[in-house]
This record gives sequence, structure tokens and C-alpha cells, in this order.
Amino acid sequence: MEVKNKYLVIKHHIEDAPRESNFELKTGTIALSVAPGSDDIIVKNLYISIDPYHINRMKFSSSSQGTISFAAPIHPGQTIDGAVIGKVVVSGNAKFQKDDLVLGVFTWAEYSLVKEGNIIKRLESSEFPLSYHLGVLGFNGLSAYAGFFELCKPLKDEKVFVSTACGAVGNLVGQYAKLLGCYVVGCAGSNKKVELLKQKLGFDEAFNYNEEKDLKSALKRYFPDGIDVYFDNVGGEMLEAAIANMRLFGRVAVCGVISEYTGAGRKASPSMLEIVYKRINIRGFLAADFLNVFEDFSAKTSDYLRTGKLKVIEDISSGVESIPSAFVGLFRGDNIGKKIINLAEE
Amino acid sequence: MEVKNKYLVIKHHIEDAPRESNFELKTGTIALSVAPGSDDIIVKNLYISIDPYHINRMKFSSSSQGTISFAAPIHPGQTIDGAVIGKVVVSGNAKFQKDDLVLGVFTWAEYSLVKEGNIIKRLESSEFPLSYHLGVLGFNGLSAYAGFFELCKPLKDEKVFVSTACGAVGNLVGQYAKLLGCYVVGCAGSNKKVELLKQKLGFDEAFNYNEEKDLKSALKRYFPDGIDVYFDNVGGEMLEAAIANMRLFGRVAVCGVISEYTGAGRKASPSMLEIVYKRINIRGFLAADFLNVFEDFSAKTSDYLRTGKLKVIEDISSGVESIPSAFVGLFRGDNIGKKIINLAEE
Repeated sequence: MEVKNKYLVIKHHIEDAPRESNFELKTGTIALSVAPGSDDIIVKNLYISIDPYHINRMKFSSSSQGTISFAAPIHPGQTIDGAVIGKVVVSGNAKFQKDDLVLGVFTWAEYSLVKEGNIIKRLESSEFPLSYHLGVLGFNGLSAYAGFFELCKPLKDEKVFVSTACGAVGNLVGQYAKLLGCYVVGCAGSNKKVELLKQKLGFDEAFNYNEEKDLKSALKRYFPDGIDVYFDNVGGEMLEAAIANMRLFGRVAVCGVISEYTGAGRKASPSMLEIVYKRINIRGFLAADFLNVFEDFSAKTSDYLRTGKLKVIEDISSGVESIPSAFVGLFRGDNIGKKIINLAEE
Repeated sequence: MEVKNKYLVIKHHIEDAPRESNFELKTGTIALSVAPGSDDIIVKNLYISIDPYHINRMKFSSSSQGTISFAAPIHPGQTIDGAVIGKVVVSGNAKFQKDDLVLGVFTWAEYSLVKEGNIIKRLESSEFPLSYHLGVLGFNGLSAYAGFFELCKPLKDEKVFVSTACGAVGNLVGQYAKLLGCYVVGCAGSNKKVELLKQKLGFDEAFNYNEEKDLKSALKRYFPDGIDVYFDNVGGEMLEAAIANMRLFGRVAVCGVISEYTGAGRKASPSMLEIVYKRINIRGFLAADFLNVFEDFSAKTSDYLRTGKLKVIEDISSGVESIPSAFVGLFRGDNIGKKIINLAEE
């Protein structure tokens, strides 16, 4: 039995801000059966995680020698892979059964033909919505947890600044920081987001960076005594302003660099003199380096979710067709919280 | 009894590259006696340490709110203090006797009137030349030792790059790295220095940055497989080039930022994207934060000196009159190794 399978490709490499027209929706077919003796698995995709880092894989530079993406390049016309949750519909592999729910690196498509190595884990629990395993209980959550706790070693009462604070990672960093007892300020790109940060997520303060002429002064206003920890998702001028407002022994975890992804903003030129005299530590990181704390992260975060101490903000669209606008929207700041595509009922 | 006391002041705040004309030599008098009941100490200065960081204390900005110097500002007309080794000539303090050799924060002068709090330590041993306690066995040595070992956590066979490699700190970092078994490349500003690094100090390679058009390519040539540790004394384009050539989990210890001290060079805009994907760690530091390892540092370094494993390069001028050209020369790269002023026979 064969079914139609809609999937997405890029038409060409993307060098600046992505546009919906960079993508093409294709329709193929996939057999819902595997050859005897094959260990293939066919997964029906339920939830697709939409993340900014994909843009770096779609650039021409990422396919050439000077690659600075940590994942394989995505080439025009080829399927695109990323974090997906799906349900096994056919399995030629004894370790997976029909109807198993699995999280893995699958294609941006309705169905994926996968190997055992593509599957990160089987999802056993139904305690939380499945989609949480792509965000708050997945790599976004781990990024927030490891970047904040492991890299920044924050203390109660320290002053914490988070950029893209309504994003999939930033909102969790701010909430973890509040749970630790820090003073937390977030910035975001709209007044609606600012309100959400203050009203729903419990940030002490938040501001709309689009309404600030001078980011250094803005941070001085919110941090008259300086910043201890800056969780950076943007780079550029915001990073410079944060360094200028940092206290002695301040720590910067660099999780993302939206300003450099699309070439839209200029690169940060933080004062190295301040970095020396204030003994600032700047560290880039990837969640994948912190799998050793996954169990800790997962247990604590699940507990915070159970007790309602951690709020979840998701932004879910439906259907493969919605991927291009969802992806492009990440760079316009359209999404509020974790951007996810729902493809089918569980 | 009173004696003449030559000392140095700045005529005005210094905002860019220092010139000899910024300084004024003054002659005062000092009584070689202390009032009964006073705990003053009179020190005859023997060796003065000349360090680039003083420029930051001499800036106007360092006297205003936006200070980014870690030490007190130096104002026009006032005496200038810094690391000095001297001999006690008169003591009203029971803890110090005439002829004691002391290291402390004294004035750029022939004699200093000091309090107990200005004295960092009494120098007991005569095993090494006294001047070593301002360089290889002093804060420069500690900067090299702590910045390299404590911050960068280097491993044998790792690839190490050092800028201003003929400077007071850089030359020691390179030698420590060689003693650990690393591959070490230094850069300096003249061919004479390059030869010294390779011939006398045992660097694997060295290059003259003035002869390189493209620093990124230069580093690629010396580090085809990338840099693990960069000990940065300059900032600017060299830092960008080092980041671009760094390997995964590379570490940058930022000890100084000559390019920013005088406003001569442009600030570094390292690629934050590379910092994330390569998980680079950049840390500013001051030797003073690592007094906890001073004993370790001192014991190991003394042993290396005794056994001839560590070479010492000093650049010594004579007399208070020579301070302006010695200081200005630091920013022209005149000095080879630790710059010291010798004021009197021991």
C-alpha cells in the first residue's frame, strides 16, 4: 500500500533572511510496508520542531569548506531533517512496534522512512502533551537548563538578563532563573510579548527592544547595579550593551546569534577591555554537549510542570504547508514561544 | 636629613597613544626620617615595573563614572604608583627593618614614603635576581601561569597561539606551553623578536604580524588543524582571526587588549556564530584573582628557572628619567621581554 507524502525542500541555498518563496512543497509517495529482512521503520510524523538554526544549514557556506554549522548542510531539492515526533506505522526493526511514539531526526514531511539511528528515543509517558518533548522537555529545555545552570552557575539574588525572552529557550531561562530566586529581565520584540513575560511568566521586568533607542541605557535602567548573567540569543548590539552593563565576574552563555544568522544585523564588537577588567566569561554552547545532565534536567523540569511552577508557551501551526511561513516567521519574531507544526492527530 | 627625590607625573589625561611629552619629571625632597610614633616606612626604589595597563589609569574616562580600569585613576600632577621593588631606608614600623627588601605598590620615584598596606611582601631569597620578582616570579608570571593553566586547562599536544609573544607575559605563556608539551606559535612585531622566539625560547613557530596581510590566512598556515588555546594580549583583528581558526571547545584567555588601550586599532568583532558552534570559551582575567595558586606558580617557576628550563628576557633601562620613553615604547613594541627601570644598586 502506498500513500501520498507531502514534504518540503528548499529551491536554492539561502544567504540572507529567508522567504517563503525559498521553499517548495512537493508530493511524493511512500510505501506503508517494508521489504522482508529490512530493518526500516516508517513513521507518521505528528509534530515537527521549527528552529532558527536550520537557516545555517541552508546557507551555501555551510555546504562549502568554511562550514560553521554543527549539523549537515541542507541542499536544494533534498529532504530537510530536524527534530520530529511521530508514530511508527510499520516496523521491520524488532526494537520498535507499530504505534510506538518516537522522537528523532526525521524529515519535514508527513511520513518518514527512518533507520534505528535516526530515533533518539521512544516516548513512554503520556503525562504531558507530546509536543512538550520538542520544547520544554526536549532540546530547547536542555539548552535553557544547561546554558543557565551549568555554564552560568547562577546564584540566588543574582541579576539575570535574557534576550529573545519569549522564544523557545529564552522564556525557560527566565523561568528557571525566577525559580532560583534571581532578578530577571527579558527583552522581546513586541509589547504583547513584554506583557506576557511580566504577567504570565513572572519576569520582574521586560522591555521591547524596538522601542529603545539606546540599548546600553535601557539595560542601565533595568540593571542599575549591573548584570551578573546574560543569556544571549541574538548577539550584535544587544551583546555589546550587555557587556557594557555587566558586573565583575559576569557570565554570558551564547545560545544563539539571530543577528548573524541572516546577516541582518552587524556583528557584536564588545569591549574586550571590559571583558578583561570585569573578568567576564563568554561561552558558546550546544545542548547536545550536556546530555550528561539530561536526566536531572528532565526530572526537575517535569516536576516544575506538574506543580505548575513552569508555564509552557507553544505556538502551533498545522500541516506541512504551514512550515515555510512558520520558519520565516521565526526571523520576524512572529512566534510566541516554541514554534511547532502539528501534522496529524495522535 | 632630607634628600632630593625625582619623580614622575602626567601633565594631563592621556586619551590615545602616549607620548613622552605627556610626562613631566619633577624633583622634590623627602626626609630620611619618620616622626616618633609614626609607622611610616621610607623605601629607596631599586626596580620599577613598567606595564601597559597604566595607560588605562591615565585616561580621563578612568577618572569619571564609566571607569573600566581595575586600579585607581592616575591624575595629572599626582604621583604615579605601580609595582616596585625597594630597600627600606628608614622604618617606623616594627615589622620592617632598615635594609629589608620589599615588593609593593610604590611611586614612580627614587624614594617612596609608604604604609604597611602598600607592601605586598618582603623578599627573602637572593637565589634569583631581584628584578625577577617584578616579572617572571611576579604578577606577569602569575598572569601567564594562571591564565594558561587555570583558565585554559591545556592538554599536552594541544595547539597554542600567543600574541605579543615577546612581551612580559606572552613569552612565559609560550614557554609554559612548550614545557607542557604543546605545539606553540607566537606572533610579534619584528623579525628580531620572531627569531628570539624560535631560537631562544623554543617556540615551534613564530611570525611577524606586520608582514602578514591577512591574519586569518597566516593562522591557517601555522595551524592547519586549528587552535585549541589562544592567549590574547591584543584583541582586535588578531582575536577575530584566532576565533576563525579555532577548533571545537577552543579556549581564549584575554589578558590584555593593547589594540583598545590607545584606540589605535578597531575593536574585535569575532563571529559569535563560530563561538556557538565551536563552543568557544572567552575569559577575561586579572592575575590578582589567582593568588590562591601563587605558591604553586612560584614553586614550579622557580624550579624551571633553577634547571634552566625557563629563559628570562628582561629589558632594563636606568633612572627615573628613562620611564617616559620606556612606557611609551611599550606601545611601539620597543621592549623585548619584561620592561623594568633600574634606579639604584642593590
